[in-house]
Amino acid sequence: MMPGGLPPALTVPAPRPPRRGVFISFEGGDGAGKSTQMSMLRDHLIHDRMVDEDLVLTTREPGGTPLGAQIRELVLHGDDVDPRAEALLYAADRAHHIASRVRPHLARGGLVLGDRYLDSSVAYQGAGRELEAREIAALSLWAVDGLLPHRTILLDLPPAALAERRAPGEMDRLERAGLEFHEAVREQFLQLAADDPDRFAVIDAALPKEEVHAQVLEKVSGVLQLFEPTFEQPVPAKHRDEL
Amino acid sequence: MMPGGLPPALTVPAPRPPRRGVFISFEGGDGAGKSTQMSMLRDHLIHDRMVDEDLVLTTREPGGTPLGAQIRELVLHGDDVDPRAEALLYAADRAHHIASRVRPHLARGGLVLGDRYLDSSVAYQGAGRELEAREIAALSLWAVDGLLPHRTILLDLPPAALAERRAPGEMDRLERAGLEFHEAVREQFLQLAADDPDRFAVIDAALPKEEVHAQVLEKVSGVLQLFEPTFEQPVPAKHRDEL
Repeated sequence: MMPGGLPPALTVPAPRPPRRGVFISFEGGDGAGKSTQMSMLRDHLIHDRMVDEDLVLTTREPGGTPLGAQIRELVLHGDDVDPRAEALLYAADRAHHIASRVRPHLARGGLVLGDRYLDSSVAYQGAGRELEAREIAALSLWAVDGLLPHRTILLDLPPAALAERRAPGEMDRLERAGLEFHEAVREQFLQLAADDPDRFAVIDAALPKEEVHAQVLEKVSGVLQLFEPTFEQPVPAKHRDEL
Repeated sequence: MMPGGLPPALTVPAPRPPRRGVFISFEGGDGAGKSTQMSMLRDHLIHDRMVDEDLVLTTREPGGTPLGAQIRELVLHGDDVDPRAEALLYAADRAHHIASRVRPHLARGGLVLGDRYLDSSVAYQGAGRELEAREIAALSLWAVDGLLPHRTILLDLPPAALAERRAPGEMDRLERAGLEFHEAVREQFLQLAADDPDRFAVIDAALPKEEVHAQVLEKVSGVLQLFEPTFEQPVPAKHRDEL
């Protein structure tokens, strides 16, 4: 780039949870029950713990914003996309989503439930082996200026079980190749969880959904305590007469 | 990201020109004459030096591919875009453009004339001061896997002269603010050129266009020698009877 000047370098921001609000992400393969569990947790917060609905933002990646939806279209339906271009597009989607929706909500003291976040990029693109997992992690962290969730729930299920949930029966060769890829994704997720046990909670997604939900509540109870002072005072107007 | 695992890091590839073909980029502010000079160089190559037209690819960033054009639309007309998201979108456009158009053409032994390349990102986004120039450089180099032009022609002109070329007369406050930004862009370009004098050639774009053209020919003559063995044998069919 600039042989006589400063060498180009990307300063990867130190990963850290937000200072205000609470951020919980859900990870795992398609069909592991992420949106079901997010919705059950949201209902619990609003109906059983009387959190103001406005304070709970559920969101997803990729495509959680209008710009993000367009980026998602480009990746899924555009020209044949180079792996670096694809990684950069996902990172751009994430940067925009975090800056425009997630950070403002957290800054208000809100609670964000995210359907996939940067661990998905690392697990899927890392499993694809065209790029190194640590490079995807660096791009993702740079994109979001270091923002990590307080807690990440990994809904873990062997891909064979996932495939059976979706389409039981014999699998042809193509599907077996897909299975190997999804095994690699699962291994990447489990490795990320093993490397960061303070943030991750791994739950066996083969259990009945009510049981998974009970475990989710247990695993988020610590971080919800971070949130309660925010929403208990002032008590949201709509619940004031219940006190 | 992964406190117990490998720290995330982006490996910025060593910058290098392509092994085959010739790559020349043109840089400078809007209105400095980049497309005029590219077109004059192209005509010279095809008509005076009898380079086969198919071997000369003129291309531009952002937006040199259909995906790139969509990305450009997103940046220019989408939601209000976060600076990191914007930098990532430009890098994605560049990654796709280089992988899908420029590298294949160079691999055939062709000549690529590029209207803006990574120096524009560094100069414009670096001048914007929301992100560091070295970070933009790192993202750009990562996006293109280290591909540098053999020669970069910087068409240098003070922004006040650029502004006069476009809209003579008094400038209001808004335009003066724009002028400061374009002064900063010019300084960034000149600094990049000073840091890498082997690659850059700075030409005074205030000169008459024929004189600028003569200087361009002088500044690219060395790198065109890299190209001549490729296009002199075999002589392109359409010129064979002229020998």
